[in-house]
Amino acid sequence: MNGAESLVHTLLGAGVDTCFANPGTSEMHFVAALDRIPGMRCVLGLQENVVTGMADGYFRMTGKPAATLLHCGPGLANGLANLHNARRARSGMVNCVGDQATYHRPLDAQLTADTEGFARGVSGWVRTVEKATEVARDAAVAVQAARTSPGQIATLILPSDVCWDEAPDGGAAALPVPAAPQADPLAIRNAADALRGRKNVLILLGGLALTQQAQALAWRIAQATGAHVLAEMSNSRVERGQGRMQLERVPYPVDLAIEALKPYTTIILVNSKAPVGFFAYPNKPSRHHREDADILLLTRYEADPIQALTALADELGAPAAAFLDPGPRPQPGRGTPTPEGLAQTLAALMPDNAVVADESVSFGRGFYKFTHNAPAHDWLHITGGAIGCGIPLATGAAIGAPGRRVINLQADGSGMYTLQGLWTQARERLPVTTVIISNRKYQILIGEYHGVGANPGRTAMDMLDLGNPNLDWVKLANGMGVEAARTNTLEGVADLMQQSFAADGPFLIEMEV
Amino acid sequence: MNGAESLVHTLLGAGVDTCFANPGTSEMHFVAALDRIPGMRCVLGLQENVVTGMADGYFRMTGKPAATLLHCGPGLANGLANLHNARRARSGMVNCVGDQATYHRPLDAQLTADTEGFARGVSGWVRTVEKATEVARDAAVAVQAARTSPGQIATLILPSDVCWDEAPDGGAAALPVPAAPQADPLAIRNAADALRGRKNVLILLGGLALTQQAQALAWRIAQATGAHVLAEMSNSRVERGQGRMQLERVPYPVDLAIEALKPYTTIILVNSKAPVGFFAYPNKPSRHHREDADILLLTRYEADPIQALTALADELGAPAAAFLDPGPRPQPGRGTPTPEGLAQTLAALMPDNAVVADESVSFGRGFYKFTHNAPAHDWLHITGGAIGCGIPLATGAAIGAPGRRVINLQADGSGMYTLQGLWTQARERLPVTTVIISNRKYQILIGEYHGVGANPGRTAMDMLDLGNPNLDWVKLANGMGVEAARTNTLEGVADLMQQSFAADGPFLIEMEV
Repeated sequence: MNGAESLVHTLLGAGVDTCFANPGTSEMHFVAALDRIPGMRCVLGLQENVVTGMADGYFRMTGKPAATLLHCGPGLANGLANLHNARRARSGMVNCVGDQATYHRPLDAQLTADTEGFARGVSGWVRTVEKATEVARDAAVAVQAARTSPGQIATLILPSDVCWDEAPDGGAAALPVPAAPQADPLAIRNAADALRGRKNVLILLGGLALTQQAQALAWRIAQATGAHVLAEMSNSRVERGQGRMQLERVPYPVDLAIEALKPYTTIILVNSKAPVGFFAYPNKPSRHHREDADILLLTRYEADPIQALTALADELGAPAAAFLDPGPRPQPGRGTPTPEGLAQTLAALMPDNAVVADESVSFGRGFYKFTHNAPAHDWLHITGGAIGCGIPLATGAAIGAPGRRVINLQADGSGMYTLQGLWTQARERLPVTTVIISNRKYQILIGEYHGVGANPGRTAMDMLDLGNPNLDWVKLANGMGVEAARTNTLEGVADLMQQSFAADGPFLIEMEV
Repeated sequence: MNGAESLVHTLLGAGVDTCFANPGTSEMHFVAALDRIPGMRCVLGLQENVVTGMADGYFRMTGKPAATLLHCGPGLANGLANLHNARRARSGMVNCVGDQATYHRPLDAQLTADTEGFARGVSGWVRTVEKATEVARDAAVAVQAARTSPGQIATLILPSDVCWDEAPDGGAAALPVPAAPQADPLAIRNAADALRGRKNVLILLGGLALTQQAQALAWRIAQATGAHVLAEMSNSRVERGQGRMQLERVPYPVDLAIEALKPYTTIILVNSKAPVGFFAYPNKPSRHHREDADILLLTRYEADPIQALTALADELGAPAAAFLDPGPRPQPGRGTPTPEGLAQTLAALMPDNAVVADESVSFGRGFYKFTHNAPAHDWLHITGGAIGCGIPLATGAAIGAPGRRVINLQADGSGMYTLQGLWTQARERLPVTTVIISNRKYQILIGEYHGVGANPGRTAMDMLDLGNPNLDWVKLANGMGVEAARTNTLEGVADLMQQSFAADGPFLIEMEV
């Protein structure tokens, strides 16, 4: 057995059975091992940022790390932006990155690069394997790291000679994964005291605390104490729709965020952090809560929020409380596309148990309000702000959640970053409906430019406008084997959505706005 | 004046008048400054690897650094692969990368990342500006670094507050750029002794030594001494065709490289390095020259090869020597596309003074042999082996060399990495003819897989085959505003090339092989 085979055996033995891949020459022995040893589903992405974004979407739906197979140096670099998003989502994955043979590296061949240096900024764990006989051991540690609550990016760098040299001991056994830590009893007591004794308390949910079960506990506490509950602004996965809490998020725009948080003199963090701006702006605060707010940590992001919220609810003697009824599903929107109308159309037509991958950027900031009455669904955000997340995320989510319709609400400018992911949807026949919000500009940036205090002139618009020529998303999708159609009305969107939801495989709707 | 304005004044004052851009929120004050201060041509790319690849192509044609405008962290990360190629091409550019405001960074907002860490592996010079009053000074040093022979990647990281804060002193004056170093007289004497006294000497040209002028000097020396001349395998820019030397390159495949270098017991390096493999392979040497070869350094990559080769030729008393006549232009190829036939078609039809951007990968390894008799042209290689270089490189070359036809010989798998660059060609109406070599597989990797000793099975082919579904490059190009057509014969290629060369603007030919 060679090192590459010991790697595949170790991954499979630890339950890693899906590999998102874009291999290169230095990874051929790994590819050959995947070919020889049955059990790994290999999914090709035509650029590495598609590959890493798929692994993120897969983890968000399964809670289980996938492997990625990436080419040395620049191959990994191409996938960093979605690794950044995955890191912010606290997703787990095991990146298997090839590299120059240990003895070849000092010669500084053209494709030699600082693979480990590229990996560091996005990984919770990085190791370069030094010999074939250590591949299995290091791979087992990588999987353990990736599975450590709530999930980590583990990057295992494999010089090509450690893959082709002999590894007679074969695969290594899976290592135990530590349980998510429990909350500090003192933190529970402090939170209970605040909830009992104070007004204007906010419970801020993030990460693992956005499941239906955690929401139910937070709601029970809120109903018993008069506290309010919000979610962080961008989240890995929120369980939403009927049977879930009508949870709103801290808004993105600074002024709205400050306004939303102004009432709260106490904020209890449940797997979340105290809200800060996505960016700084001149003469605006970076922290969006009141300066005098008391920030209490109930649970850090890696902790088990169910245990902590259960203990807190019990400590408060909070009785069971049903979620508010969001009312019946709306009618689909009509006429010219608006954010509200698109959200209503979605809520009206979305199949049960759908998954929404949301990279709608500026257009979609208000979608939550109009989709509480949709059937139960999961909503995935772009967690790290690195655009180009939506298409790969939707693709990986569809692989991680077979049988569920995935709806990708996708801004056009961001969609262009990783449009190659559509091809993987076609190859794998994935039930993904992509709605391209085609405004033909970087609308968020035009808004930001106005914030600078001026209207963009010709030079600025050359960098902010995506027209001239207009992108034709129908042709782009068709060019990658995905059926598509264009519409400029919500009726058209509704028709195309229904058609897509009834069919197998991917479909793209270019919605002109 | 604010820091961003002082930056624009400094860049313009130092002759940097072209900016390849994909801005984000943290760069809005820079965008606004570019809008207010006339003189900078701003060219948008729809993903950052397009932006950095364009800056590389621009430098290769102009010898002058462009600026890039990149978004913080992941924005820069998206452009790293083509920065790697640019670093290997030794191209100069000034990356202006936004970042979180200095006081916002410690809050670790979602889009906060290790921008400086990402930059290090690809940059010769990196600095994060600390205050607005230092922007101009640091920018002047960045341009100086970028212009230092032969060219360097300089990355200037600009926290957003250094852009919006006041910088009352305005722009800084351009700093002097040191001249390229001259060769060590001892190195010239050693080379002359070897050329006079030994047989089987190879003169290996790289980098700055691939101009017509340097070739003429090397040829003069070779004719006088019986030495042979080769170019390195992948080069920033080679002046080729009629009136230039019939220069061949060290081959890519290990066995062919070893064979080609076997005769030479002395290798004189002129702005080149001793040949090593792109990758290591089991039981094959990493260095491709003879173990007993004597390696003599005439000039390092940053030195002036004209001065050194002139001195060497004079020392040898080598008389002027005309290049061999490559013969008349061939007829265009006929029938099913072959590498030879495509090269002949190109040589037959290429307009005078064209630029070839070559990312043909495995298909194009023999193109040189059949294009010596083409009209004078420049040939640009993928220097760092990071695929996704060709389309951006061609785009930037067209901007750097107005009035010249650019021909991008482009493998399909690599082309998919940065297909977004076609949109910039359409927007800027650039005279770029893209020939997609559409074999619908990662052919180079299938070759490498065979090298591992087996035929790829189903799982491997899932990662090496680009069919199912086939990419439709005509639709992809049309979707970005570029006219396109498909053909599966060389006659078809010839017709489409002629049509494209006679028209303005970009055109894409999907050549099925």
